[in-house]
Amino acid sequence: MASIEEFEDHCWKDVVPAADLKLYSCYARKTYVGTRPALLAIDLYNIVYRGGAKSPYELDPIYPNSCGVYAHDAIEPTKRLLAAARAAGIPIFYCTQETRPNNRPAGAVSTRRQNAAMPHENDDYDIYREFTPQAADTVIRKQRASVFQGTPIVSHLNILDINSLIVCGESTSGCVRASCVDAYSNGLHVSLVEECTFDRAQLTHKVNLFDLHHKYVDVMHVGEVITHLERLAQPKNA
Amino acid sequence: MASIEEFEDHCWKDVVPAADLKLYSCYARKTYVGTRPALLAIDLYNIVYRGGAKSPYELDPIYPNSCGVYAHDAIEPTKRLLAAARAAGIPIFYCTQETRPNNRPAGAVSTRRQNAAMPHENDDYDIYREFTPQAADTVIRKQRASVFQGTPIVSHLNILDINSLIVCGESTSGCVRASCVDAYSNGLHVSLVEECTFDRAQLTHKVNLFDLHHKYVDVMHVGEVITHLERLAQPKNA
Amino acid sequence: MASIEEFEDHCWKDVVPAADLKLYSCYARKTYVGTRPALLAIDLYNIVYRGGAKSPYELDPIYPNSCGVYAHDAIEPTKRLLAAARAAGIPIFYCTQETRPNNRPAGAVSTRRQNAAMPHENDDYDIYREFTPQAADTVIRKQRASVFQGTPIVSHLNILDINSLIVCGESTSGCVRASCVDAYSNGLHVSLVEECTFDRAQLTHKVNLFDLHHKYVDVMHVGEVITHLERLAQPKNA
Amino acid sequence: MASIEEFEDHCWKDVVPAADLKLYSCYARKTYVGTRPALLAIDLYNIVYRGGAKSPYELDPIYPNSCGVYAHDAIEPTKRLLAAARAAGIPIFYCTQETRPNNRPAGAVSTRRQNAAMPHENDDYDIYREFTPQAADTVIRKQRASVFQGTPIVSHLNILDINSLIVCGESTSGCVRASCVDAYSNGLHVSLVEECTFDRAQLTHKVNLFDLHHKYVDVMHVGEVITHLERLAQPKNA
Repeated sequence: MASIEEFEDHCWKDVVPAADLKLYSCYARKTYVGTRPALLAIDLYNIVYRGGAKSPYELDPIYPNSCGVYAHDAIEPTKRLLAAARAAGIPIFYCTQETRPNNRPAGAVSTRRQNAAMPHENDDYDIYREFTPQAADTVIRKQRASVFQGTPIVSHLNILDINSLIVCGESTSGCVRASCVDAYSNGLHVSLVEECTFDRAQLTHKVNLFDLHHKYVDVMHVGEVITHLERLAQPKNA
Repeated sequence: MASIEEFEDHCWKDVVPAADLKLYSCYARKTYVGTRPALLAIDLYNIVYRGGAKSPYELDPIYPNSCGVYAHDAIEPTKRLLAAARAAGIPIFYCTQETRPNNRPAGAVSTRRQNAAMPHENDDYDIYREFTPQAADTVIRKQRASVFQGTPIVSHLNILDINSLIVCGESTSGCVRASCVDAYSNGLHVSLVEECTFDRAQLTHKVNLFDLHHKYVDVMHVGEVITHLERLAQPKNA
Repeated sequence: MASIEEFEDHCWKDVVPAADLKLYSCYARKTYVGTRPALLAIDLYNIVYRGGAKSPYELDPIYPNSCGVYAHDAIEPTKRLLAAARAAGIPIFYCTQETRPNNRPAGAVSTRRQNAAMPHENDDYDIYREFTPQAADTVIRKQRASVFQGTPIVSHLNILDINSLIVCGESTSGCVRASCVDAYSNGLHVSLVEECTFDRAQLTHKVNLFDLHHKYVDVMHVGEVITHLERLAQPKNA
Repeated sequence: MASIEEFEDHCWKDVVPAADLKLYSCYARKTYVGTRPALLAIDLYNIVYRGGAKSPYELDPIYPNSCGVYAHDAIEPTKRLLAAARAAGIPIFYCTQETRPNNRPAGAVSTRRQNAAMPHENDDYDIYREFTPQAADTVIRKQRASVFQGTPIVSHLNILDINSLIVCGESTSGCVRASCVDAYSNGLHVSLVEECTFDRAQLTHKVNLFDLHHKYVDVMHVGEVITHLERLAQPKNA
């Protein structure tokens, strides 16, 4: 849904050198939403919204997991994306941390963060109130960065006859990247929604979007994806 | 721990024809417990004990998931096995059904049983009272027959530096077989404890043990395995 | 494509006790070929045809891997099945052993057979001459029993937009069972073709078909499956 | 083997802002080589060395897959690393593209590069002459970025009793990153050797090393790793 000429019209243009963009021109192509998509909302849980719409640099001493302003800026586009997905009737998947007792041995965690407690059963890893899952949605509990690692999502997608994903969430350089690479490598077309994807730091956010877009997925703008979903939502022979 | 001459000293001798045993003599070998083992107790949950120590044929109309007498006969040896594993200090894994809300789409179930409700949050899939997990144990929640399918157990075993399994539980022809094949195919040595493994029907129980023993795992008697664990439990230089 | 009344009309009727069939009546259902199927032909390689259409008991001393008469009886129905699949234009997958140099460490093999050499580069593991793969087919090289274990087949099926399998080949108690369980657990509908599936010994062949049919797949007769494929092959608006 | 104070002494210091380094200080820790390691050399095949030690910007029109000077600069340290690994007697794994006929359907490729032909059987994907595999090494053929995706490597590592990896090769932003994330998520400790890892463009090389080091692996200098391997190579009680 975006032409080959628009392939680099994304947020990384101010950090990736022109010579590198030229080197990566071999990846340029039209982007699109795949057939029979599901929406996958990655790690939209409470702790990344803590402290409000401030810079993560400022929030870090008190809320070391918060994506602050980047998380809050993504709330409105993500609400619109979810609403369009629900209107189109496509399956909706969320993922979050597994927090149940006895769920893993020490050390089986998403990253090597040193001051992190094991996820536990407070509301840190509940889905943020603006995006509460509904009865028909599926919530995948994971222990690692990728939603495909040690979870049943591949079988769920097959059962629901899904063969592509629309992805949003965080963090771009962590769980989003790992999940997108795995989705692509499992044979799924992935559309990653730029305005609904975020991280704590901008350089790594942008370079990871750049890598993902060229090598594995179609980074798309939220308007394009919503337009596509609205078309799906229309009665077939209205 | 059992010699090659004892390779066929198991419960299947009364159902497998002598000519087939001869055909399978190419699989005969010594059996043993592997190095750095963990214990894996498969699906020791309440519904398979319902109705007491009666024949599953008799229990079927009221308790269609019960293994009846076969489940109850395995209680004492399984308690001894678990006690020996705890005394030896090896890691202990349980698995059971995932019952949390929103955990899967319809149809992502262990078998094609037709009258089965989706697993739900009563006590059907709690571990039976004789085998209650302890704080240091890991409980894997699964949706399919094999404990390796769509779960993080491979990463747990690597983190705990485990490279073999001692397996018990049910059903021999379902979750035990699927889990044992996957364990073997993932490169783990498996010792399956005959007296602590059970099913609803004897022919398929015995033929599956026969298949597993020859092709993938060492079916061993509970006494052999407990003796091995007792040796592990002894202080190294007492 | 077979009614619920025909659910037990299969080869295991002479070995599974009537009381067990009753116990398993909770699995009875209509059987069918799924939507968007691929054909998967498991391990139709030369060594299982060695020595001709004789009993494996007789062939064992010279051809210890041969399925003899069971392999040869399946040749004609398998040729018809493959022809129907090609006429219907569905994707065709084969699998066989990986035989390339340096492909694995010692011990990474399909079963614990003791006298087995590592697969090597003679013609033992070439596909039998009656079933030679064609240019558009995919041949999966595997090291373990299941075609899903350590292979890229899941991604291939997703790319080809396949969500069900028609399966044939050998051995019922080894690679066929392991592959069918994995296919089901990955969310695929599986139709296993009875007359095109075989093993070295009849008891374990029949009990494994019985287990697979009730728990994981639809065991179907070759005529039913070919009729379905012929319908797929017809021009849509002829 | 590197102290917590040296945690950021790596090549990314000139591209990652100081404020981001501060934000990521929660990941700082000692780095080390794990117990029972194997060496994994990723995609050291001919096409990335084509055209000699020039800038990829310059080589791109003729050798669009070449890493040029970055590949050639890594040759000497990689030879030393391989020699040390061989002297220490640890298992050595290579990976490269699968090029055999009929190995996959169209589209099952590592990245979405548009002008790429399907890998074929010339010498493009043979291991570069300086690093030729030896008889005891394992060569994994893969179709996707990660060496863990659709390959039997997990079972090989278990069989060889390996629980950590020393990784080198290319590309940092592609196959190295995907493989390292999967290794970590499978429960393996990973030491990624900075001087033996390379890419076509420096910004994404450095940001990916930065991401990997903080979240998933220990990026280490080649000297540290070789010193460790030399210690392993010494006779235990010399």
